[in-house]
Amino acid sequence: MRWTQTFIFTLRQDPGDAEVVSHRLMARACFISKVAAGIYTYLPLGWRSLRKLEAIVREEMEAAGSTELQMPAVQPAELWQESERWFKYGTELLRIKDRHDRDFCFGPTHEEVITDVVRRSVTSYRQLPVNLFQIQTKFRDEIRPRFGLMRGREFIMKDAYSFHASAGSLDEAYRAFERAYRRVFERCGLSYTTVEADTGNIGGSESHEFMVLASTGEDAIISCPDCGYGANVEKASTGELPPAPPWTGARPAAPEAVHTPEMKSVEEVADFLGVAPSHLIKTMVFETDQEFVVALVRGDREVNEVKLKNALGCTHLQLATPEKIEKVTGGPMGFSGPVGLTGSRILADPTVMALEVAATGANRVDTHLVGVVPGRDFQPAEACDLTLARAGDPCPRCPGTLAEKRGIEVGHIFKLGIKYSKPMGCNYLDAEGAENPMIMGCYGLGVGRTLAAAVEQNHDDKGIIWPLPLAPYEVVLVLLNADRPEVVEAAERLYSDLRAAGVDVLLDDRADRPGVKFNDMDLVGFPVRLVVGSKGVQAGEAELSLRRDGVKRSVPLADAIAEVGRVLEELRAETAPRS
Amino acid sequence: MRWTQTFIFTLRQDPGDAEVVSHRLMARACFISKVAAGIYTYLPLGWRSLRKLEAIVREEMEAAGSTELQMPAVQPAELWQESERWFKYGTELLRIKDRHDRDFCFGPTHEEVITDVVRRSVTSYRQLPVNLFQIQTKFRDEIRPRFGLMRGREFIMKDAYSFHASAGSLDEAYRAFERAYRRVFERCGLSYTTVEADTGNIGGSESHEFMVLASTGEDAIISCPDCGYGANVEKASTGELPPAPPWTGARPAAPEAVHTPEMKSVEEVADFLGVAPSHLIKTMVFETDQEFVVALVRGDREVNEVKLKNALGCTHLQLATPEKIEKVTGGPMGFSGPVGLTGSRILADPTVMALEVAATGANRVDTHLVGVVPGRDFQPAEACDLTLARAGDPCPRCPGTLAEKRGIEVGHIFKLGIKYSKPMGCNYLDAEGAENPMIMGCYGLGVGRTLAAAVEQNHDDKGIIWPLPLAPYEVVLVLLNADRPEVVEAAERLYSDLRAAGVDVLLDDRADRPGVKFNDMDLVGFPVRLVVGSKGVQAGEAELSLRRDGVKRSVPLADAIAEVGRVLEELRAETAPRS
Repeated sequence: MRWTQTFIFTLRQDPGDAEVVSHRLMARACFISKVAAGIYTYLPLGWRSLRKLEAIVREEMEAAGSTELQMPAVQPAELWQESERWFKYGTELLRIKDRHDRDFCFGPTHEEVITDVVRRSVTSYRQLPVNLFQIQTKFRDEIRPRFGLMRGREFIMKDAYSFHASAGSLDEAYRAFERAYRRVFERCGLSYTTVEADTGNIGGSESHEFMVLASTGEDAIISCPDCGYGANVEKASTGELPPAPPWTGARPAAPEAVHTPEMKSVEEVADFLGVAPSHLIKTMVFETDQEFVVALVRGDREVNEVKLKNALGCTHLQLATPEKIEKVTGGPMGFSGPVGLTGSRILADPTVMALEVAATGANRVDTHLVGVVPGRDFQPAEACDLTLARAGDPCPRCPGTLAEKRGIEVGHIFKLGIKYSKPMGCNYLDAEGAENPMIMGCYGLGVGRTLAAAVEQNHDDKGIIWPLPLAPYEVVLVLLNADRPEVVEAAERLYSDLRAAGVDVLLDDRADRPGVKFNDMDLVGFPVRLVVGSKGVQAGEAELSLRRDGVKRSVPLADAIAEVGRVLEELRAETAPRS
Repeated sequence: MRWTQTFIFTLRQDPGDAEVVSHRLMARACFISKVAAGIYTYLPLGWRSLRKLEAIVREEMEAAGSTELQMPAVQPAELWQESERWFKYGTELLRIKDRHDRDFCFGPTHEEVITDVVRRSVTSYRQLPVNLFQIQTKFRDEIRPRFGLMRGREFIMKDAYSFHASAGSLDEAYRAFERAYRRVFERCGLSYTTVEADTGNIGGSESHEFMVLASTGEDAIISCPDCGYGANVEKASTGELPPAPPWTGARPAAPEAVHTPEMKSVEEVADFLGVAPSHLIKTMVFETDQEFVVALVRGDREVNEVKLKNALGCTHLQLATPEKIEKVTGGPMGFSGPVGLTGSRILADPTVMALEVAATGANRVDTHLVGVVPGRDFQPAEACDLTLARAGDPCPRCPGTLAEKRGIEVGHIFKLGIKYSKPMGCNYLDAEGAENPMIMGCYGLGVGRTLAAAVEQNHDDKGIIWPLPLAPYEVVLVLLNADRPEVVEAAERLYSDLRAAGVDVLLDDRADRPGVKFNDMDLVGFPVRLVVGSKGVQAGEAELSLRRDGVKRSVPLADAIAEVGRVLEELRAETAPRS
């Protein structure tokens, strides 16, 4: 392809609303263009990269035994009512009324539709397992869409679904997808990790996330370098946490009120009382659809809201507002504590109950209590793990110490079980003629998101550094001095030879100044660059370099094609899948 | 692929709502599955055929100089308000409100979005022309979706858009697309024709439709076998129509009322009055957004509503209800006439004005007028061509006679001009520095619809007869007697050899009875069938046949691969593009 015949118009300025590097660079380099909040056009460069990724995903899905189909974007409410998600999904589900005032939604996921497809056709264990996938446009009406393709409203996803007559058969498919996902990210040339994950809105018994590692990632990943344990921080367990140091404050026989004027933070209070932050009981008030809940963790730790949600078995949970805290506890925010608190359910982390003596809020303005003895002065409804894991915590599986990395979730696989097949009557007859709900798995991979994650992981201050498999073009051939016929001739000959050799090459045939061209090459991030200019042609040479190191070397024009081929082969070898 | 590892479960029964053959066969043969009215899942067989078609379309678009991108399905109302289509498009536009109550639509077409993309990036004539396409899912909220993929609500379309600095440049792109479309349909192995078309809701100056010919097609095509003139009946012109025969009825000096009790049809009235139907003035009352309009054509002809709409320059037009006719004319439906009619605009076809003497309704119950002289007894606001062309009419271009065929519209290309670029400010600076709106073209091809049209054109009472390029698999290898190891072995060897030879083959490895298998093969419509059974294997033979003629012949097992290759080559040669 020639630059002047495609559609590449780079921007000098970052778009005003770009908060993350992938959004900034993909917009400037003419990969995407914003249409509305969270809604983008894939411009030709972006679409070319996306289709390369799509081809890798498709091949690996087929190799994993999945067959492609295409379900509609617009889904009837009736199916979502059968699974009850119509009532539970909330405002992220883009609901639509058609001209006859019938309810539909723009599908954010397709469990209901695929379950309907399968229950119409499959009735016997002899027809199982069934394993289907699609690559499709979905919509999730995020309250604050941002980060470009990373968290868009309209987005392209690969979603696969499998149906089984036994848990063992599901396990086989699950392992095949796990391997297929590893191969996808390896073939894309991305650093990634697999972690245990929470099953969230989708539901089910087991689930793993695939994270592309990037310092800018929005997810925290907890992992153990010794045993390989890894989990999303939301899901991460720890070994037994070390106890708080001995209590050094007063030890009154009953809790005693202390005046703590305007001291709201753990550090201020601990400092004032002369105790460690771990001696404080952090008291957080949450609200679910049904009730107020008070969660207690040690002052030096944070509450893991997902653990809390799972302990409560609720789908919606949020921090109570200051007004509601006052209503629930009788005191202002910052001075809450469990002593004497009635009328709401209290859940405490075991590390709180293990404190010998502690301090906490008195549910009264500018007042804390000291000498609080958990179990004596208050009794929670439940003691359960509520503490957010962090680097330095002991590993739950081995004597090692946990570390923390940042990552971007690009894939998520679930063992769904019968969560959808049961309410929707997606049953099969077994060999004995008994009817059972099919056992299901589902497997998502964010296609647009993986592209953005690749940019988050691979860039420098000049622009994108595409891994070879995702680059819109593998090689850019830059023609300098387009006014000199002998240079044009040399460039055209190279272009035609490269194409004849099957190289995925873009010829930058613009008449622009070299500075403009080089800036564009760095911004767009073509992996291999071959430059042909007036001086080089006189010397019978072109200049070859890789985007990732920028090291330039001259190659004789006569060897340029072979040299480019050799470089590409080396780069390709780096992304051979290990899984 | 093996039958048992994909997802093919044919139906014995036609779906209850299938009104056309393609819907019926594609549903029974497991190509599509209904999700809601006008909304379908492409099952694996259907998706495989669709992707083959998509690949042909993509190649031809690229060869025509168009570059692929992908615009979003969900489009903000603001863009549609700029073009004013938000107000004009009516209820077929699926309007959506997001969680913040902002207006969006599910795009039925993308003129607004692409114009916005281009105006953001292109400012100079040096950057033009620009030529972009996408293959994408769209939505049109049809009032009565039906006919399966033929007229669905959610559908897959290829849409391309070009932007130019001169009419000559647009013309070049238009011709390139015209040729690309021809090549697409030729490569698909479909009989098609190109016709002049009305520009409808999209607008613009010139437009052609591509029609796949099928006796079941919903469009009437008027064409001249002599000179090659062809047009959608909506758009078709004729040469001067032959005059009505001499008037044989009474010739009163002024119109005279005749009692015609309950005679409403042209035939009844003409017969009663003893004149030819062509002596009657058919008087049709229509309603637009603004006014009532009366259209006059000769009694032996029909009104072309599209011509009437264009003459009026309106977007909405419908026949008036009986109540409204009575209000407008003073008489009941069936007795309308132009004499003495005031208060609504009258348009008359020239053939009406050419009548020497005529009869027509008297705007009074059970009464007609005879002795009506057009021009003396009534005067239309305008005389213009309103007659629907039909077979037997003279060709407008040569002395030939027009014929009529049925077809299915699968492609439509338009010269848009500045219809969108002007209101949306999509301008460029010319070489003199003056600002001008870009000149646009747009080019649609119904991808899902072409697949359905292929079935309408190619089927028999047993099922689909796929043209080779659109078949989900080119060859089906049928294993009979799956309980005999030597037959399984022979079939597996052939399967593996066919795959090694690069043949697109499906192995029917089901244990079903031969009758079930053969019915399925005929229904699904694989072009080439190779059958391996117990008797054949004993004789060292397989049975080869084509779906289209069903003629079976034995081929030695040792020659089977070569024989299949030869047959495929012959079939492939038939779809080599002529354009």
